[in-house]
Amino acid sequence: MVEIELARNVFEENDAIAAEVRRELKKKQIGCVNLISSPGAGKTSLLEKTLQIICSRIECAVIEGDISTPIDRDRLIPYCENVVQVNTDTFGGDCHLSAFMIKNALLKLDLGRIKLLIIENVGNLICPADFDIGENAKVLLISVTEGEDKPLKYPGSFNAADIIIITKTDLLPYLDIKMENLMKNIALVNNKAKILCISSKTGEGLAEWINYLEFAAGGNCQNITAV
Amino acid sequence: MVEIELARNVFEENDAIAAEVRRELKKKQIGCVNLISSPGAGKTSLLEKTLQIICSRIECAVIEGDISTPIDRDRLIPYCENVVQVNTDTFGGDCHLSAFMIKNALLKLDLGRIKLLIIENVGNLICPADFDIGENAKVLLISVTEGEDKPLKYPGSFNAADIIIITKTDLLPYLDIKMENLMKNIALVNNKAKILCISSKTGEGLAEWINYLEFAAGGNCQNITAV
Repeated sequence: MVEIELARNVFEENDAIAAEVRRELKKKQIGCVNLISSPGAGKTSLLEKTLQIICSRIECAVIEGDISTPIDRDRLIPYCENVVQVNTDTFGGDCHLSAFMIKNALLKLDLGRIKLLIIENVGNLICPADFDIGENAKVLLISVTEGEDKPLKYPGSFNAADIIIITKTDLLPYLDIKMENLMKNIALVNNKAKILCISSKTGEGLAEWINYLEFAAGGNCQNITAV
Repeated sequence: MVEIELARNVFEENDAIAAEVRRELKKKQIGCVNLISSPGAGKTSLLEKTLQIICSRIECAVIEGDISTPIDRDRLIPYCENVVQVNTDTFGGDCHLSAFMIKNALLKLDLGRIKLLIIENVGNLICPADFDIGENAKVLLISVTEGEDKPLKYPGSFNAADIIIITKTDLLPYLDIKMENLMKNIALVNNKAKILCISSKTGEGLAEWINYLEFAAGGNCQNITAV
């Protein structure tokens, strides 16, 4: 009972800070998306390609979440000058980003200039979905190499997503996965999310994602059907 | 401070039950390995191939950890009659297996007959490594599709592994990953683990893994250099 009570307190405290972050971003008219996936689903590769295109059109910032190392920041810095690395090992090695970490990271950005904030969460298909970090939309990435059953086995994260991006579609010819089964399983746990299919390697599907982000930059992330 | 104290109590309680599980397995001379990886790294596919070979030689049992669904148990039942599914959504949706869940699952197995227990943990490259579940060896799987930087970004799990299996090696011709970089990064965080390279699809590397499991069946899992 003490454990349940404490977990409730942790989430309540997080939610209060997330609301603060959301108010601050709204005031500055900054759209904010939170990228969630397993390790290696291709979040950083997608961001490399995304920033190459979008940074000439919109003032962007990225918060990079990892347990350890500045590897991902270093990959993105060539394409975007506003990248803040958050390493959770300085917060006890947390398996997810929390609103408190985002609030801290925002202090390192010139929010007056930014229109779009992209947060790359820690690679984990379970825990990050439980923590509101003040985003306007949760974007879940699932790579075709992970298998068609994942929506059913990780229903919490799939259900929480506003957008689901199926990544690494260039590998489909070499895999046994059936896309129609993956789509069917996604629909069973979330029939509202917008679904995009993207290969960061070939650029397939990237345009629709960029369109969405340009739309989201005004803070309209949630109303994805309008894109 | 209350949070830190409570986390310590959770781990202490878990460790005490894990020690109980370990004693029970040792008494029955059952070797036990704990498979840890990201979702979709190929744990269940590896087990399908493993059980097809090993079940005619050794009496095996499998405990399948997932948040939800009996999908993985259903995949393995054709090859092994002793498969117990643990769904953590009946324990609050935990992102890992705990010793308590294993202790409960063991009640459903005829331990007098079993020589090898394989536990497939929940797909998560972070949290499961923190929870001792009474195993003799932790086996970490990383698929070649996940990228060469993962050992550095998830040092806790990689460091805790006794064996590291690089999976889906059949996809190497279609990826940019350099195996020598992945190996170098593994060595930076863990220079003691035995490393195996396996494709469950082609069978490459499977024989060495089966040899290890046959050796481990006597409860000798940790001394992998003897294999």
